[in-house]
Amino acid sequence: MNTNEPNNFPLLERISQPAYLRQLPLEQLPEVCRELRENLIAELSDNPGHFASSLGVVELTVALHYVFNTPYDRLVWDVGHQAYPHKMLTGRRERFSTNRHFHGLRPFPSPEESEYDSFTAGHASNSISAALGMALAAKAKGENRHVVAVIGDGAMSGGLAFEGLNNAANTPNDVLIILNDNNMSIDRSVGGMKNLLHKLQINPTYNRIRYTASRKLLSWGWLDDKRKKSILRFNNSLKSLISRQQNMFEGMDIRYFGPTDGHDVIELVKTLRIIKDMSGPKLLHIHTVKGKGFEPAEHGGAVWHAPGKFNPQTGELIKSDESGMPPKFQDVFGHTLLELARANERIVGVTPAMPTGCSMNIMMDALPHRAYDVGIAEGHAVTFSAGMAKDGLQPFCNIYSSFAQRAYDNLIHDVCISRLNVVLCLDRAGLVGEDGPTHHGAFDLAYLRPIPNITVASPMDEHELRHLMYTAQLPDKGPFVIRYPRGRGSQVDWQCPMQEIPVGRGRKLKDGTDIALLTIGPLGVAAQEAIRQAEALKPGLSVAHYDMRFLKPLDERLLTEVGTRFKRIVTLEDGVRTGGFGSAVLEWLSDHGMNIPVTRLGLPDHFVEHGTLKELHALCGIDVAGIVNTLTN
Amino acid sequence: MNTNEPNNFPLLERISQPAYLRQLPLEQLPEVCRELRENLIAELSDNPGHFASSLGVVELTVALHYVFNTPYDRLVWDVGHQAYPHKMLTGRRERFSTNRHFHGLRPFPSPEESEYDSFTAGHASNSISAALGMALAAKAKGENRHVVAVIGDGAMSGGLAFEGLNNAANTPNDVLIILNDNNMSIDRSVGGMKNLLHKLQINPTYNRIRYTASRKLLSWGWLDDKRKKSILRFNNSLKSLISRQQNMFEGMDIRYFGPTDGHDVIELVKTLRIIKDMSGPKLLHIHTVKGKGFEPAEHGGAVWHAPGKFNPQTGELIKSDESGMPPKFQDVFGHTLLELARANERIVGVTPAMPTGCSMNIMMDALPHRAYDVGIAEGHAVTFSAGMAKDGLQPFCNIYSSFAQRAYDNLIHDVCISRLNVVLCLDRAGLVGEDGPTHHGAFDLAYLRPIPNITVASPMDEHELRHLMYTAQLPDKGPFVIRYPRGRGSQVDWQCPMQEIPVGRGRKLKDGTDIALLTIGPLGVAAQEAIRQAEALKPGLSVAHYDMRFLKPLDERLLTEVGTRFKRIVTLEDGVRTGGFGSAVLEWLSDHGMNIPVTRLGLPDHFVEHGTLKELHALCGIDVAGIVNTLTN
Repeated sequence: MNTNEPNNFPLLERISQPAYLRQLPLEQLPEVCRELRENLIAELSDNPGHFASSLGVVELTVALHYVFNTPYDRLVWDVGHQAYPHKMLTGRRERFSTNRHFHGLRPFPSPEESEYDSFTAGHASNSISAALGMALAAKAKGENRHVVAVIGDGAMSGGLAFEGLNNAANTPNDVLIILNDNNMSIDRSVGGMKNLLHKLQINPTYNRIRYTASRKLLSWGWLDDKRKKSILRFNNSLKSLISRQQNMFEGMDIRYFGPTDGHDVIELVKTLRIIKDMSGPKLLHIHTVKGKGFEPAEHGGAVWHAPGKFNPQTGELIKSDESGMPPKFQDVFGHTLLELARANERIVGVTPAMPTGCSMNIMMDALPHRAYDVGIAEGHAVTFSAGMAKDGLQPFCNIYSSFAQRAYDNLIHDVCISRLNVVLCLDRAGLVGEDGPTHHGAFDLAYLRPIPNITVASPMDEHELRHLMYTAQLPDKGPFVIRYPRGRGSQVDWQCPMQEIPVGRGRKLKDGTDIALLTIGPLGVAAQEAIRQAEALKPGLSVAHYDMRFLKPLDERLLTEVGTRFKRIVTLEDGVRTGGFGSAVLEWLSDHGMNIPVTRLGLPDHFVEHGTLKELHALCGIDVAGIVNTLTN
Repeated sequence: MNTNEPNNFPLLERISQPAYLRQLPLEQLPEVCRELRENLIAELSDNPGHFASSLGVVELTVALHYVFNTPYDRLVWDVGHQAYPHKMLTGRRERFSTNRHFHGLRPFPSPEESEYDSFTAGHASNSISAALGMALAAKAKGENRHVVAVIGDGAMSGGLAFEGLNNAANTPNDVLIILNDNNMSIDRSVGGMKNLLHKLQINPTYNRIRYTASRKLLSWGWLDDKRKKSILRFNNSLKSLISRQQNMFEGMDIRYFGPTDGHDVIELVKTLRIIKDMSGPKLLHIHTVKGKGFEPAEHGGAVWHAPGKFNPQTGELIKSDESGMPPKFQDVFGHTLLELARANERIVGVTPAMPTGCSMNIMMDALPHRAYDVGIAEGHAVTFSAGMAKDGLQPFCNIYSSFAQRAYDNLIHDVCISRLNVVLCLDRAGLVGEDGPTHHGAFDLAYLRPIPNITVASPMDEHELRHLMYTAQLPDKGPFVIRYPRGRGSQVDWQCPMQEIPVGRGRKLKDGTDIALLTIGPLGVAAQEAIRQAEALKPGLSVAHYDMRFLKPLDERLLTEVGTRFKRIVTLEDGVRTGGFGSAVLEWLSDHGMNIPVTRLGLPDHFVEHGTLKELHALCGIDVAGIVNTLTN
């Protein structure tokens, strides 16, 4: 299906910029939404991406660009999974088929790509803080600019969002926060979301009730007309009470509107027009349905978050044949964790809102009382794990590498100072591919290495991952990090018996005489192939291969051998060259008086773009060809 | 005054462990509190420490150890400024005169020091997460253990506390959170704290009102007996309303008690006895006065947080003569920021709750609308700064180095990816002395270095700090970090005219022929003295000295000179050797084929204890003697 045939989307064709959207009459907006949704379904069925979140905000996106004067007014999208309709309306529809491709449209909003993308998105919960900063900048510069943050209920559980809200409530500003509530996180357990009070803020019944209640409370002496903030908070509480919803904004000095239907674009426009020029911070709570307008996605749960290719008519997912392929590292983690937990009752699982992404859902299904999804809250996940470790449990906390940057202080202060037995598994370590610079786990080796009392390991393959997980949960191993990448390993037959690996013990996989190639993690597999090719290419060349396994502690026995036997060393890692594994080798050699030439292969000192893993590994010179090139030069 | 004369504190003498406290009749507790307070005043007047916070929790501490079976029951102190009464009651009173001394009692609660200290304290807001972990561990192991977190209203503004609360509200547990509200942060602007409703939860009037209101609301159809959580939240809201206080717990499924008087030890005991065995998470809100019981401290504001020595009778602060001494780096920062802000209207200041500690109060007093204290919220401080930078302001965000670990992801994701013009000043970088391992700014050079797009500098003295601050605010310098230590610099006459330093340009302070000593930051001053001594000690020795100024970008011109002219290089930094400045030099030399012996001086790969700066610099071999030793060996 050629989605760019002009006749398919006559309105969208005319909206090359939001300014043209704003010229349409209000009544045409539902049709714009219909086209937008259809266009998105067609594009994403063929070129996979974040699907359900984007479908959920079609009406909101249209309403925002219709009411606000973008890009002068600022829209700050939180996380950015939901930004495809925004991209389509802001001059990027023609290029949308390049979305997430190497040199194509970026996976998330990015100020480097468009002036309509006002802030970096990718990591959750930053939108309120950024929007508040922009709002105060506008004020300082005398600009009459509106600033709107759009944040999901999931991201609202992040501490950063709370810090931003708290500051917004205490600082003069006119920020509008839109809480896009698709029932992903807030009050899951209560489940009261279905009893909505529609259009609460302009509902005459509500206004009458509010009036009656206020009068009562005034007569009881609980309210005081002079105390405006009390009244504000009282009204917030009342709304929460009437709508029977948990509402963290009740206790804050932020004017709260809603909840309202996020799929009625005309009402959204009317509501936004009413509140856009109100002074003071305000929050509009809208309800949306993830996957709205595409039946299978509305009811299909997590799989439709990023479903891959599918049939746009039937909703059938188009799966490639995966039989005979090695498993994903995350699945080896998930199954192995359950296996270990069954044998060791001290083991508990902790994930900050990534049970499916890291496959901890396997343990959650089997042992629901021993695995915790703590919400988008990486810092808490680590400190909470530390508390459990302190009193004798053995937590396995799994966080994507780049998100673990949020828990850096927690790891140092709450885990490592007291040397607590927390196993931290970093999934998505190294380059992640299409999700790009915000999601590459580029820095973990470098930022973990300076921390005392910590063990940092990376398995070369599935068997090694299992051995490391087994080792990490043995008694009193202290803080133990295991990092592994997104995607598949190299061993189809992965279910080996597990055995202890002595901490800090690497292994020599191949002997040689000219160059010692030291690797850490699954790039070791590429290194094996590269050595074969290099030795074939350059007769007489003899390369030794060491899989070091541990960044910290380093295997001093192997390094002594390497430092005394070889005239040249090459190190290879799926992480930044600056301060990482190669740097550790260099430091050790220097400290031991071995000043041997070392070539460090790894990620460069700039943010690596998005693309397939293959393209990016080649770009950074850490694919087979890049390694061969280094070995033969 | 010998505070340990037995007759002064007859009750405390008997309480070598809390078990003995628990043997006393309830009526004697006020007397215990009186002794404890007097003992604290006497000790702290002579041996400085965190004063006012500890006085504020005397009654709470006594009540907690009286009601709970410590150390089996867990007390988790947040931050730990307030833990001195706890230390005195838990077997450390005799050694209290060693508090904060090298090899003496530790500055904060520390599990390594006492089984009564259940978790690492120092960085704010971690107590709820840790306590929740402990509570779930107890449950998992079938232990009937109580877990209590004590957190101040200031620490409650941290996102980590919110993440902990949020998780506590959604997970079955029996944690007791005590909110020690001394009006430091929550609702400062509203100031409604004086209208307390005393003993709200057992107040018959409140109960009557609650009954009446519930009946009304039931009849209006707003409440529903089946919805227990709604009722819980309604009661929380009602309490908040009656007490006229902002209350972030209203909207959460946490049972809320209070506010109550935190200085009535007998009532505290009674209240704790009532609620200690209630199931589910609960929060007791108490009001205390910082500095309670010592008149000058009750009204003296920030100075009594950690006042130094004072006269215990009069409250007169005993100041040492500081005339003729160089200024503190923080004051040079504070005055220079104001000077720059007056000339550059784009400049704004941002501090996460440290205006006095970093001297941004100087700008706040002079230009109150251009400097923001955002509360204990380091992550928000950085992202908020990024938002302001995005729209044309030039923020100077000041955070203590070790607390900046909390903002690591914000720096990478929100500032550096888009290369925004945020100046991040890291005060308390390097060893900080008596505050010990939680507060040493040991890791910043190492954790900043791997980040792309960032400039990282450290001034050798006051003039250099001013030049770097001037340089950083010039147009489009991108993310710019300036790190400097706690304490004083070396130049009395510090108010020099400011000039631009080319980014990445170091300076040669002394030429030489044998060794090149490369330094970054104020240790360069010690290096100068060390070179003088070393050259005097070892005739013929000739040491060149380079103040590199920039960790990133490195001065390649100077490194080329060093790499080609010298046979030995020594690097010196006030940060971890692993991955830091020395490592950067090593990497550069290796990348340029210069495999020269490098000795890296810096902090070791373990958490450095507390002590005076002098003691700790000597311990780590980065004082004059240590450098001389390296240069002459």
